[in-house]
Amino acid sequence: MPGEDNVIYIGNKPVMSYVLAVVTQFNNGLSDEVLIKARGRAISRAVDTAEVVRNKFMPGVEVKDIKMGTEVLTGEGGDKANVSSLEITLKAKA
Amino acid sequence: MPGEDNVIYIGNKPVMSYVLAVVTQFNNGLSDEVLIKARGRAISRAVDTAEVVRNKFMPGVEVKDIKMGTEVLTGEGGDKANVSSLEITLKAKA
Repeated sequence: MPGEDNVIYIGNKPVMSYVLAVVTQFNNGLSDEVLIKARGRAISRAVDTAEVVRNKFMPGVEVKDIKMGTEVLTGEGGDKANVSSLEITLKAKA
Repeated sequence: MPGEDNVIYIGNKPVMSYVLAVVTQFNNGLSDEVLIKARGRAISRAVDTAEVVRNKFMPGVEVKDIKMGTEVLTGEGGDKANVSSLEITLKAKA
């Protein structure tokens, strides 16, 4: 899947772990865009990550797009739950 | 301040409280836009609110804009902390 490599999935680690991952992605030079994805409670951490990257480390990066969505998770017992998702696309300015 | 009335601030209440507030704002007919604002951990609840409004109650509402930001909070002792913010603008389709 093209561009899959430049996706950072936000989980439960400290924000700085994901900030480092995003900065590393930009610095490896393979893409001028990095996609930050999160679901549920991790969404606020995704916003923190994007804001820290832009404000503290990479002022030359802009927010290209922000998308919201809803995903259906199926539990082991077959029960289903809706969970919100957020995708933030960061792009290095030309 | 124009438009201030159609802003819903997300706090620690259940998501459905804010969903009801957003739906009520649209239904009072004063504006075809409602702005959902949240900071910090409430950001994921803001996304939940917007998604539930659109998917379960008002399919005729679209996401017009999503903005991220960082606000500086000053504590009682004068200490400062950065907190991320998110603003979601929902708009009734014409």
